[in-house]
Parts: sequence; C-alpha cells; structure tokens
Amino acid sequence: MEVRHGSLLSEAIQQAGLDLNIPCGGQGRCGRCAVIVPEGSVRARVATRLSAQDIAAGYVLACQAVVEGDCTIIIPPQEQIVRRLTSERTAARIGLPFPYNPELDQTVRGFFVRLPPPTLGDQMDDWSRLRTALAQEHQVTNLTADLVTLRRLGAVLRKSGEQDWPVTAIVEMDAWDRSYGPPRLIDVLPGERTEAVWGTAIDIGTTTVTVYLVNLVSGEVAEVAADYNGQIRRGEDVISRIVYAAKSAANNNGSKPSGLAELQNLVLETIGRLLARCCQRRDIEPTQIYKATIAGNPTMIHLLAGVPPEQIRLAPYVPAVNDMPTLRAAEIGLGIHPAATVDCLPGVASYVGADITAGLLSTGFEESDDLSLFIDVGTNGETVLGTREWMLSCACSAGPAFEGAGVEHGMRATAGAIEEVWINSQTWEPTYRVIGNEMPRGICGSGLIGLLAELFITGVIDRAGSFRHDLPTPRVRQGEHGGEYVVAWAAETATGRDVVLTKVDIDNLLRAKAAIYAGFSVLAHSLDLRLEDVSRFLIGGNFGQHVNVEKAVQIGLLPDFPWDRFHFLGNTAIRGAYMALLSRDARSRLTEIARRVTYLELSADNAFYNEFTSALFLPHTDQTRFPSVASILKQKPEMAWEDTEQNPL
Amino acid sequence: MEVRHGSLLSEAIQQAGLDLNIPCGGQGRCGRCAVIVPEGSVRARVATRLSAQDIAAGYVLACQAVVEGDCTIIIPPQEQIVRRLTSERTAARIGLPFPYNPELDQTVRGFFVRLPPPTLGDQMDDWSRLRTALAQEHQVTNLTADLVTLRRLGAVLRKSGEQDWPVTAIVEMDAWDRSYGPPRLIDVLPGERTEAVWGTAIDIGTTTVTVYLVNLVSGEVAEVAADYNGQIRRGEDVISRIVYAAKSAANNNGSKPSGLAELQNLVLETIGRLLARCCQRRDIEPTQIYKATIAGNPTMIHLLAGVPPEQIRLAPYVPAVNDMPTLRAAEIGLGIHPAATVDCLPGVASYVGADITAGLLSTGFEESDDLSLFIDVGTNGETVLGTREWMLSCACSAGPAFEGAGVEHGMRATAGAIEEVWINSQTWEPTYRVIGNEMPRGICGSGLIGLLAELFITGVIDRAGSFRHDLPTPRVRQGEHGGEYVVAWAAETATGRDVVLTKVDIDNLLRAKAAIYAGFSVLAHSLDLRLEDVSRFLIGGNFGQHVNVEKAVQIGLLPDFPWDRFHFLGNTAIRGAYMALLSRDARSRLTEIARRVTYLELSADNAFYNEFTSALFLPHTDQTRFPSVASILKQKPEMAWEDTEQNPL
Repeated sequence: MEVRHGSLLSEAIQQAGLDLNIPCGGQGRCGRCAVIVPEGSVRARVATRLSAQDIAAGYVLACQAVVEGDCTIIIPPQEQIVRRLTSERTAARIGLPFPYNPELDQTVRGFFVRLPPPTLGDQMDDWSRLRTALAQEHQVTNLTADLVTLRRLGAVLRKSGEQDWPVTAIVEMDAWDRSYGPPRLIDVLPGERTEAVWGTAIDIGTTTVTVYLVNLVSGEVAEVAADYNGQIRRGEDVISRIVYAAKSAANNNGSKPSGLAELQNLVLETIGRLLARCCQRRDIEPTQIYKATIAGNPTMIHLLAGVPPEQIRLAPYVPAVNDMPTLRAAEIGLGIHPAATVDCLPGVASYVGADITAGLLSTGFEESDDLSLFIDVGTNGETVLGTREWMLSCACSAGPAFEGAGVEHGMRATAGAIEEVWINSQTWEPTYRVIGNEMPRGICGSGLIGLLAELFITGVIDRAGSFRHDLPTPRVRQGEHGGEYVVAWAAETATGRDVVLTKVDIDNLLRAKAAIYAGFSVLAHSLDLRLEDVSRFLIGGNFGQHVNVEKAVQIGLLPDFPWDRFHFLGNTAIRGAYMALLSRDARSRLTEIARRVTYLELSADNAFYNEFTSALFLPHTDQTRFPSVASILKQKPEMAWEDTEQNPL
Repeated sequence: MEVRHGSLLSEAIQQAGLDLNIPCGGQGRCGRCAVIVPEGSVRARVATRLSAQDIAAGYVLACQAVVEGDCTIIIPPQEQIVRRLTSERTAARIGLPFPYNPELDQTVRGFFVRLPPPTLGDQMDDWSRLRTALAQEHQVTNLTADLVTLRRLGAVLRKSGEQDWPVTAIVEMDAWDRSYGPPRLIDVLPGERTEAVWGTAIDIGTTTVTVYLVNLVSGEVAEVAADYNGQIRRGEDVISRIVYAAKSAANNNGSKPSGLAELQNLVLETIGRLLARCCQRRDIEPTQIYKATIAGNPTMIHLLAGVPPEQIRLAPYVPAVNDMPTLRAAEIGLGIHPAATVDCLPGVASYVGADITAGLLSTGFEESDDLSLFIDVGTNGETVLGTREWMLSCACSAGPAFEGAGVEHGMRATAGAIEEVWINSQTWEPTYRVIGNEMPRGICGSGLIGLLAELFITGVIDRAGSFRHDLPTPRVRQGEHGGEYVVAWAAETATGRDVVLTKVDIDNLLRAKAAIYAGFSVLAHSLDLRLEDVSRFLIGGNFGQHVNVEKAVQIGLLPDFPWDRFHFLGNTAIRGAYMALLSRDARSRLTEIARRVTYLELSADNAFYNEFTSALFLPHTDQTRFPSVASILKQKPEMAWEDTEQNPL
C-alpha cells in the first residue's frame, strides 16, 4: 500500500486495516506498539521504552516513527483480549433495588389508545388525532414529539388496523426533576404493546463496559452483558485517551476521523454490541430501548458525547461539562431508538465522575449517619469520605500498575496472567495460579499485589522494596534494570522468557498503593478525623472480587482494619445507574449527591505529598497503623520491625 | 453509461447528470419530459400527451419509458427558468410591522458575561461556570444546551481572553407560548457580540421561495432574497411533488435518495443559497442565524421536514402534522446555526396551511369586525371568509392553468412569456407585451387572463368559451384539438411555431377560474351571506401584482365589486412569518388563528359542484352578478347578453 511521506507508522498500519494496540494513546510511553522494520526508510524518535537489544533487532515504536520511503514492517503477535469478566452474570441474580411502581416512579411509559380513522367529516391530522386521544384517555397533555417519530407516525397508524387504529404510544412524561418541559412522544407501535417498554443502564469503565437491559414495566433486569471498552487499543488510561482524542485527521485523504470521533465510535460499537447481545436473547430490537442512564468517569462521558476532554488533563483540570443536559440517542449515535432519552449521570470534578456519584447512590452512602469511606479502585483511586451530612472526595493518580500496565511483565487479567502467588518462606520458591490454566505470559493486578506481599512477608524485599541479595536462591538476581525476582523460568512460560518482577516494577506498585492510601488518609486528616473512625469501608470496582484482602493490607494498600469493616461491592456504578433508570426519586438523589460532594484537589496539597511519601514503604512508615502486619513480622526475627516511630529513611 | 435493464429513462437521464424537467413529478401527465429516441431498445407506455406526429418523430415521455437495451437519447432544450421575481426588493422598503422591544417580544437574545477563568482553587466546569454567570448577571436560570454547542464551549471560552473570559451567550429564553421548558443556550461567541443575533423568516411557495434576513435586536429586515423553489423540476404542483416524494430509490446502486429526501434537499438548497446571498451582503455567516419561522402550504412543510406527505392527496386528505413541534436546524439540515430554533408555522388542513394562517395574521384579518374575504391565488385557490369572530376556509383545486401549466403554449412568467394581450374589436388582430421584450415563446398566467377576457369581450368566443368561426380573420381557425386563436404567427415567435390558445386550453382556464369563484361563493352561501356583503377582498400571492383587475372581473375570476374593495397585498405569507419571528404575541395570535379557522371540505359538497358548473361560463351563468360586464356587452349589439335568468345550456 502507499502512504504519504512522513506518515506515522502507527497510522499507516491502521490504514492498512491491521491490528495494532496503542495502549498509551501514541505517547511513546508504553512500548506496546513496537514493530520490526527489517528493511526500508523509517525515521524513529529515540524510544526509551526499547532496550539496546531491541533496537539492534530492528524494533521501533510505531507511534514514534515516520515513513520516509519504501519499507517492510513486521507486526509481532498482539496481546489477545480474552474475556474473563465476572460481572456478566445471569440477570436473575439482580433483584429490584426498591419497590417499583412504574406509574409513580418511571418517566417513560407506554399508553394504549384506539383512534378513530379520519373521514371526510373528520379531517384532523394524524398528530393531533393521537394527541387528542392521549389527552382524553390518559390525561397526557401538551404532548410534543421528535421529528424522527413524526416521520413514521402516518405509516404506523395506517398499518395498525382498518376499522380503527389501535396503537401504543411510548411517552416520556417529564424528566426526573419534572423541569424538562411537556411530555414527549418517543415512539408509536401498532397494537397493544404497553409491555414493550425497555431501558438500559450502562457503566462505561475505562477498561470494561457493562450494560443492563431493563424492563421498565416490571423494573427487572432482563439481561446483563459486559465487555472490554473498545477504546483500550487507543489508550489504556484516561490520560492516554485524552491525548489520543486531540489527534487530528492527519492521514492521506482526510477521511479518517479525528481521535475524538474515533474514540466515540469505538465505545459506541462496544455498547451497541452488548445491547444487541442482550436484545437477541430476549428476542427484541435495540430500537425498543427508549431510555438509557449512563455512568462513567468524566473522560468517558466526554468521549461518549463527543465533547473535547482535553482540559481534564491540563491544570487547573476542569471538565467541559460535569452535568450533561439530557440527550437523545440520535445526537450521539447510540444504537437504540433514535428519540430515546440518554441521561448521562452527573459528576463532581474532572476525576470524580458519575461512576462515583452512582456508586455512592447504590451503596446508600448518603443515607447513613456512620462515617463511611467509599473507594473505587482503578487507574485513579477515587475516594469519598463522609456521612449523610457531608461528603468530601478526592482522586489520586495511582497509575495503571494495578491494571498490569507500566510493569515489565504486567498484563490485564486475561488468559495467561498469573493471578495469585505464594512464596515458600524457607526456599523462596513460588507457587502460582494462572488464569485459564495456561502457561504464564505475565502477571495481572491481583497477582502483583499477592506477589509484592509475599516478597515482603518472606523477606525477599525490605520495607523500601529493595531486594536482599544475600538469600541462597537463584530467583533473586541482578537484572538489566537492577534487582529482580524470577516468578517463572523461561521453560515454563508461554513467551519463552523469564517472567520477573523488577525493582522498577516494585517502585511503580509502591507509588500506586501509596497514592491510594494517601488519598483516603488526607481526606480524613483534612477533617481532623482518624481512619480508625471509619466504620464502613466500601470498595467498588471489580478489584475486590479478585484481591486477597489480607495481602492488600500487608502491602499497605488497604488500612489495617477488622476485615468486617470492608465491604467489597463489585460494580457499584452500574447499580447506581440502574436505580436512576427506574426512579425519579433515585435520579434526584443522585444529582443531590453530585451537588453535595466537595472535591479536594490533591495536586495543590502538601499534606498529600507527605502522606504519599510516608506510604511509599511496606506497609507504611508508621508501623502503628498496621498492627496485624507488625505482629506477623515479629514472628520472623530476621524481619523484625525496627522499633522506631521515626521515618526510617 | 450503463444502467440496469428496466430502468426508467428519466432516472437514467438524471443518473447521467443531465438536466430534465419533470413538472408533473413523473406521472406522464404534463408531457414536458419528452425526449427523442433515434435508435435503440426503449419500451414506452402509451402517452396521451404526445401527438401521433410526435410519436412518429421518435418522441417518448422519459418518465413513462423503460430502457431494454442499448439506446441513444436526444434531450430537447429544456425550458429555462429565468428570474423575474418582483418580491426581491430592497429591504429598506419593509418597515417594522409594529413597535418592537426585543427584551419583551423576542425569544432569542444575546447576553454578555465576563467569566473568571478556573484555577486550582475554583475548578468549576466550563458549563456550570457559564450557567452561574448568566443566572447571577442576567437572571437566566435553569439553562440547558444542545450537545453541538457544549462541544464548542471549552474552545470558545479559552480563545475569548487570558485574564478573563468575555463571551456573548445566545439564548432562547422560552418558546413563543412560554410552554417549552427551560432557557436553552444556542451559541457562545468570544467577546461582546450582543448585536450579532440574526433570524430569518421564510416563505416556501410551491413555485417561489422568499427569505427575509432579520436583525433580531432592531427587528429590521436587513436583506430580502427570492428564487424559484428548486423542487419545480420534480413537479410543478403539490400533487406532482407528493407523487414524486413517494418514489423509492429504484436505481442501479441504491445510493440515490428517495423522492422525499431529494425534494427535501432541493428546497434546502434553495433556502441555503438565498440565505448565503443575504449573509454575504451583510458580511455575516449563516451560522449567526439563530431562529427561523417558516410559512408554506402543508405539502411544502412536510417536504421540508422530511415527513411523508402522501395522505394529503388521498381521501380523506389528512396531513401527518398541521402544527409541527419546534425543531432544531440540524434536525432537517437547514444551513443556519445547527442549534437554531426552526418554527414551522401551524396550518389548518391539508390544503389550508401556514401560508394562509400567516397571510391572515399579516392582513390583520382577525382584528376587524368587517366581513372580509382573503384569497391566496395559486394552484389551489385557498379562501377564508370571516370577521374577528369567526373564520371559515376552503381550498379548491383550481389546477395550474393560471401558472401556465396544462395549457398548450402556457409557461411561467419568465422571459419570452406573453404577459398582456389586447385584441382589436374590428380586426381581431392582437397586440401583446412579452416579458424581457423577447420574441414570444408562450403565454403566462396574466397573459392568459387578459387574452381570455379580450377574446370574450371582442366576441371571438361566446359565453361557453366556444369560437365563432364566422369572423373574417385567419386568427381563428380549426386546429388539431378543435378551434384555436393564433396570438403570434410562427415567424414572430422564438419557437418558430404559431403560439395559439385552443378550445381545450380555454376549457382548462374556465375550470380554474370557476373553481376559485365557486370556492368563495360556497363559503358565503354556506353561511347564508351574499358576496356583496364582503367589504374587504384581500388578495395574497404575487398574482395581483401582474393581473389586470378589470380583465379578471370580465372573465368572472373575481366578483364584480367596486375596485376599491380589492386589496392586492403581494406576499402575505412571508410578512406573517416575519411578524411571528419578531414577537411572542404575534406568534401566539398565529396559533390562535390556526385554531379558529374552520375548514370546509369541498370535495364532499354538492353546493360547490353546482356553483362550479354555474361559474364555467363567461363571466358567469347568472348575469346579475356581473353588472359592469353586462353593461359593456350591451354596448355591442352583436354580443348582447341573452336576457334570461336561466342557465343558458
């Protein structure tokens, strides 16, 4: 194929229709888009992610190289995204969150009317005919409609019957806060179809998209589906996607969409595929879905709506919109009924979005007098501390280490990932469990937490994360980037290379766990509260469903509380979106939550920096905060906790 | 080029990018799409519009012939559409219709605010920042916005300034009836631009589209432009366009839009071209137009909105929508600001539309106690009789004869059309005036009325429209279709053929004038009123600006009143749309007019049929209704009015 002189190699590869992952969004940071150029003219910028060995072997980063003449490119096998999603479960397991009466609670309803067809003596137009009947029989007055619905009205009425016209009108009665204007006709169906009113609750995670297909008459979740967000290959974290979104169409013919449009299309494709799967199981059409509520962090909501997210990553970090006006599906190209209401739930700040407010709603956070702490663990550790009276939030940039990125042999929790590790404290030999029972290819988040805890508890690394090189085991050795521990020898791996955890990796993991821990510590300290006073520790995200709590405490990611204070709640965002889908009242409470949550900006906060540096040790500089860990270590004289209150460094 | 076997010849010609007029919409009625097939395989249906001579010469109607093999097509020169539009005048001549105070009257306004840019201590999102300022400084609360505007918001704010952000918000405060919901942000402009608020009033005539560009701050008409409706070549009257709209994409590759979409695009192109012309003169962009009011008959409004109009022509003749909900420009693809309000004004019935209600508004019809009669002369003679207390309307299918269609040498009022004729009562030799002072090519509407009156008054035809063949003039002769009068000999015409008026043409004209006269007669009689009681005869449409009143009375098209009761008002529809654009109150009155006008369906009315047949004579069966005409005829003994009260036939 031909490309313009000076084209980015990554764009040329995409134009050729070939698959290339660009997890960091094309910043040259992650090194995942490395390709081999055996011959030809390519000019590459210096790529710190490539070793001298790689460069000698002809590797370049496709996102950092431009085509300057004829060349041949070899694309190494791309990491497979294998489904291993625990959130896709049978819908029967999801109960109604509260007693549901659609007549009182639901904004979108179906009304059956039987219209008299027009005659020469009754020439009322179709639209007035329907409006009059709905007003007379169901007290739906001042009805308005979208053009897309009016265009179909005449044909639907005339195919509904001969003697009379029996039809079902799908009407949005008002908005959740009743401030929205007159009722709006969304659709007209021939015959009595008042049962055919469907909605969807959607959680757009940076990594995973989850949808509920909900019957708006019964309120029940009919189907659940989840899949990876199709945007992943254009950036693994929100910052990478914001960078990618700003890329303009710089290809040969200008027909390629901008980065923003491409990311919008990718997530719409993911949602569309999931909804199609749900609808197929129920034998309905996606166009029978008349309402959607959407949770997600602000970047995800901006990308879905096609609103440029660039200011989210630039100081002073303000989103364009925290509280999106109600949209129609056709405005963003969401593949449900084009006139369906799309309600993007409100967020608080650039890094505390609708995923958090919906999460708070679903946990009943604002209904309790107890001091609670809600944390959604992911690339950003968003944390909310408060009671029904007040809520204070923060977000700390933990980085993607717990999601397997930025770690030498890190990977997502897919087939071939080491997800759990145990180390023998006598021999320092590991035992591990691999997802899919395959030969290991790398280590995922829960495996990294377990491995870090085991290395620490067995004395392979010290409190600062440095290797002890005096241990009689070949597992601990000096690698290219300093000390490293070999989890799996080349012979037993799928890659034919040793799977290791390096000192550099450990430092990344320590920074991630320190950021999260510092986040909730600062929240508490800023209010002169002690973490110990928190009676409920609510943990959202799929994180908790894989992580071993004991090990998370041992590395100082979670505080050393009685375990019964921890509540691992899974995907709280989708459940909040589901509640907002069903009920005006729940939706109003969600906006009230968004209004009441105060945001504490940590980037301007010295206390956060102090807390962060103190938490860079295992489990923490201040041993008194982790008594259970201290007691384990005291049983191992060689690892005895240094008896000091002072920072050991 | 290649087309599919069985393609319509007219479609094949359009696919080839060649120009072919199809005035009747492809029904085979008008005969204007005749082409010559010198060789090749084409199968044509029997075409009554072609003479045996034409068929022998190889003519077929392109809309009635299918391609069955290789063939060669010769397309005769197409009738040129030359501009001769009296409605395009300097805007300075159009005064404000009433005292205008934008703060009270106007729904769309500009507000200047100066926003503090965000800081780490003030991270309010862009959208909330603007909303807060508008609420605090201008009491604009609960503002909502379209996505298209939110997408641009961040960039506009940041380019507005450094120290602070001075911007102008264009806001739709509410709808004309204040029932519409919260205020809506339409646009944001950098700097203080409160003067830059523009609107447009549009009249979509079946033949002519007229636009006013209006400054919504001063209320003044800044520019006026008018042009032929681009849909003309796909059908000259509304019925032809409805037929064309129902055509589906039956070409080779399916990429051609359906008839409906094509007609929608054609009128959007016309409007877009006119607005671009106005904006260019004022050095503004069409995207600075934030509001549009649109008048037009129901078929025109359906086609503009892309709503199928097919039921308008089928009994019992009901439109899909008489009163369209308020639209956004982007919904229909109107080339102004995409979030601009588009208000299609309300109509009454399938053939009494917003052109009539807007016309009534502009005449002050509903403000007078006098019995008034409003008539908009065109293909359909829409008539309204009433006072401020009541209004009764009807529409009669006059046919397109007065617009030059359905007449052997009829043509539109373009260059080469005979527009006025005088006949010498001694010699029966005509004198005529031609538009553009060219050699004549045909006769337009005003020419036909004048010619018919002259033929009658000079005794060339009798009261039934039949030729007297005993006159000593070669002008009256027997033609292919019966008697005919030669207006211009071949040697003096641009076509090289005699320009004649035939008995068939005269019958068409008599039917047209009889339908219009019968319409207002039936309205009056149905209420036991006499036409003589009408004190104001309000005539809308460009008709009156060309027609000689005396001759219109002589043929019995207009009643025989003192001439001071006739008020020729020109384009009343655009003036009503302009009033509705400016003021909530005028817009409310327009809807009140649409509600109060009662529609009388003539197709089910025997009285109409009786009136119609009585009016098929010159000037009318009942001579007492036309005393001024009778007195002229009495001066000519050979034409003496038969002294009878009975129907002479």
